[in-house]
Amino acid sequence: MSDADSAYAYAYERLADQLAEQVRNGTLRPGERIPSVRRMGEHHGVSVTTVLQAYRKLEALRLVEAKPKSGFYVLPERAYRVPPPRVSTPGKAPTLVTTTDLMDTIVAASTDPDAVPLGAALPDPALLPLRALSRSMGAVLRRDVASGHAYGSPSGVPELRREIAKREWHTGRTAAPEDVLVTCGAAEAVSLAIRATTEAGDVVAVESPAFFGTLQAIEGLGRRALEIPTCPVDGIDVDALEHALGRHRVGACIVTPNFHNPLGSLMPEVEKERLVGIACERGIPLIEDDAFGELYFDQPPPSLRSWDEDGTVVRIGSFSKTLAPGYRVGWILPGSRHMTAVHRQKLASTVATATPPQLAIADYLTGGGYDKHLRKLRRLLRDNVGRLRAEVAARFPDGTRLSRPRGGFLLWVRLPDGVDALELHAKALAAGISISPGPIFSPSGAFRSFVRLSAGHPWSERTEDAVDRLAAMVGSAMV
Amino acid sequence: MSDADSAYAYAYERLADQLAEQVRNGTLRPGERIPSVRRMGEHHGVSVTTVLQAYRKLEALRLVEAKPKSGFYVLPERAYRVPPPRVSTPGKAPTLVTTTDLMDTIVAASTDPDAVPLGAALPDPALLPLRALSRSMGAVLRRDVASGHAYGSPSGVPELRREIAKREWHTGRTAAPEDVLVTCGAAEAVSLAIRATTEAGDVVAVESPAFFGTLQAIEGLGRRALEIPTCPVDGIDVDALEHALGRHRVGACIVTPNFHNPLGSLMPEVEKERLVGIACERGIPLIEDDAFGELYFDQPPPSLRSWDEDGTVVRIGSFSKTLAPGYRVGWILPGSRHMTAVHRQKLASTVATATPPQLAIADYLTGGGYDKHLRKLRRLLRDNVGRLRAEVAARFPDGTRLSRPRGGFLLWVRLPDGVDALELHAKALAAGISISPGPIFSPSGAFRSFVRLSAGHPWSERTEDAVDRLAAMVGSAMV
Repeated sequence: MSDADSAYAYAYERLADQLAEQVRNGTLRPGERIPSVRRMGEHHGVSVTTVLQAYRKLEALRLVEAKPKSGFYVLPERAYRVPPPRVSTPGKAPTLVTTTDLMDTIVAASTDPDAVPLGAALPDPALLPLRALSRSMGAVLRRDVASGHAYGSPSGVPELRREIAKREWHTGRTAAPEDVLVTCGAAEAVSLAIRATTEAGDVVAVESPAFFGTLQAIEGLGRRALEIPTCPVDGIDVDALEHALGRHRVGACIVTPNFHNPLGSLMPEVEKERLVGIACERGIPLIEDDAFGELYFDQPPPSLRSWDEDGTVVRIGSFSKTLAPGYRVGWILPGSRHMTAVHRQKLASTVATATPPQLAIADYLTGGGYDKHLRKLRRLLRDNVGRLRAEVAARFPDGTRLSRPRGGFLLWVRLPDGVDALELHAKALAAGISISPGPIFSPSGAFRSFVRLSAGHPWSERTEDAVDRLAAMVGSAMV
Repeated sequence: MSDADSAYAYAYERLADQLAEQVRNGTLRPGERIPSVRRMGEHHGVSVTTVLQAYRKLEALRLVEAKPKSGFYVLPERAYRVPPPRVSTPGKAPTLVTTTDLMDTIVAASTDPDAVPLGAALPDPALLPLRALSRSMGAVLRRDVASGHAYGSPSGVPELRREIAKREWHTGRTAAPEDVLVTCGAAEAVSLAIRATTEAGDVVAVESPAFFGTLQAIEGLGRRALEIPTCPVDGIDVDALEHALGRHRVGACIVTPNFHNPLGSLMPEVEKERLVGIACERGIPLIEDDAFGELYFDQPPPSLRSWDEDGTVVRIGSFSKTLAPGYRVGWILPGSRHMTAVHRQKLASTVATATPPQLAIADYLTGGGYDKHLRKLRRLLRDNVGRLRAEVAARFPDGTRLSRPRGGFLLWVRLPDGVDALELHAKALAAGISISPGPIFSPSGAFRSFVRLSAGHPWSERTEDAVDRLAAMVGSAMV
């Protein structure tokens, strides 16, 4: 893309964003005619082409429709009136997670390459800078043929730790390279954090729903999960957590404050601050899984680490959602209290993260294209989420509730009463559509009326058709 | 190397091996003159150059010396009369492993790039086919830019599982690709195996001494280690293990039957068979760490799996000692009883092993150069071990005992009475020499009179000088 192209894209995208916001917040009402292309162009000082491009995008997002010889009208859109799911109300006792064969099958099926991929929480390879990364890998191996082959330090290669530390300032608090330990993806980081902060049999507080990978880690390590009520908009209910801490001996707490998987929720800053305060006061390790943090739609959200004064927060990030899942590179900032224990656990399980992927990512980050890639990726995913929301809202029966994510690319859908998510999952899979049913996100098997849909793939007619067919299945399940 | 070169190398190496064996088994006695170059050449039907090359090698191995105008004489060599260390006699109670800061420091120091590297159990990069692997990585990324970037299957990429399965027939029993799960090095495989077969608090029987990485894993997972007497020649004492199993509830047993780290011991086949029989009879998972199995000096040693009729053996291998430590690729054959549990533990900790290193290794193996590389590597390491043994035997004071490894590249040295391995380690490190002191190989801190030396690096004057200086330190510590 040339610079001129890029400036053009920016102008029309900005305009489309402004108008979309006006539709969403009600400034432009359903049925209202939006200003003509000419008037809008004059008003904003942009060309007719730019305005038309912006209007076409609003059309694609199902926010407006063009009426022949009349203009563009705001659609009587349900998407912004479909309510979000309610705060969860899990049981009050810690639960031993038990993965069943069914769940294994579900998780395996979510990456079925032949199905329409609404299941796995993975960005489509087409959205990732794979060629650039491959070039970096080649450059690294040419530069020093031996460097990629020796054991790296358990903490990771210095080049990458430096780049990760540099990026931390986006999150509200700086970090030094020595604060960072590179891991085999965020998954290993979570496993290390659990092992370093708790012992077998300990209770780990988790959000309800929680990412099933975290639940699997808790199960695999013989810990028990305590589900805390969590709001699809504002994340974990800090009051409920505080109450639970008074009733149970909790060894650690794992939260995803930014763009929770599967909720897409974002904790308000004041709640983040309260959460950190409570954890610090009680000395309970607070594990922050921030794998989606870079995929914000508006502002970079601050990390819990911003409020941490005594090394209580264990912060976790990943390149799997933004660069290359198959490189298996994530990181952990264990904080001063847990650094030694995390380091030992790393040595005792995988010794070090594979060197070539680390060096390739470091080279790519140093090259400077990452931020540009992220800006583009965020826009794409935001639009994708908007389309998927609009489509689900338009097609699914009344009684459906829909999350409104502020980042990431996942939708959490409450099905109308009586529709069973596991049955829907089986039916959808048989029809070549992969989705993630709610029960895999709960150690107690809750969320039988929920499904998670992923908007991580380029929008296509195939996706649109899959959502229509899903809607029909939901409808027929209600009868 | 041309074919002619290679045939030439083979002839002289074969001759040198035969003669070395004759020195070792006493056919040629200390002080004896070996046949002249001409006679030897006639006898074996090889050229004078070939014989001379073989004699020079025997000289380098300190088996013979040239006397001017007289010929080659068998040296009054101590190396083959220095006795091996005795069978260990550990305590009889399971021990909670406790890693100390001192041990962390020791392990970290063992890879100090500035020190003479007698510490870490790593092959020198110069001995590994790094260029060929880099070419494979490049080819793989060019072939399909996306393939390296998607999440792989938790079990590993099919190409690599196939190649690993193919190689299993060397170990006495065939395997199918579905039997193989690729891991982040043997270290992850051991951690997965412990998690899949035992629970926190369980007792895990280990050899005495045991690889410290295994001890760290047992500690990190909250298991207890039970040390079983182990012979530096024949490996774990199966009678002692059987006795211990009668006295303790043991959850699993971890052994290294082939070229044990640090002992270099090799279990006789009859003992392997007995060991598997006992484990199967009692239903105790038997974890076989075979990271060094490919580095035999004579015959490929059979795996415990050969005798396993009911899926009790969990077999572990690695490319870290033969190809590329930094790629972090190992594997596990969990056996029928433990496959599901190991698979779940893999998903719950690192999800999958990084894809590009797996594909690169698969490409390299498919290319067919691996066996040739291994043949060369085995010869090099065998010679290196011979030289290091000879040097230690010649320089260290009386009272020293020395292992006689049948594969791998590690020497286990019993220091004369009164010499403390931790003090020697500290002194050596201050003098720029890294070694591994015995206590890191025992959960109860035994082996204070032992050190492990690595012969994994090309022999040089620097190594020779380091051994001389170590010998002097040992001597002065005795006073």
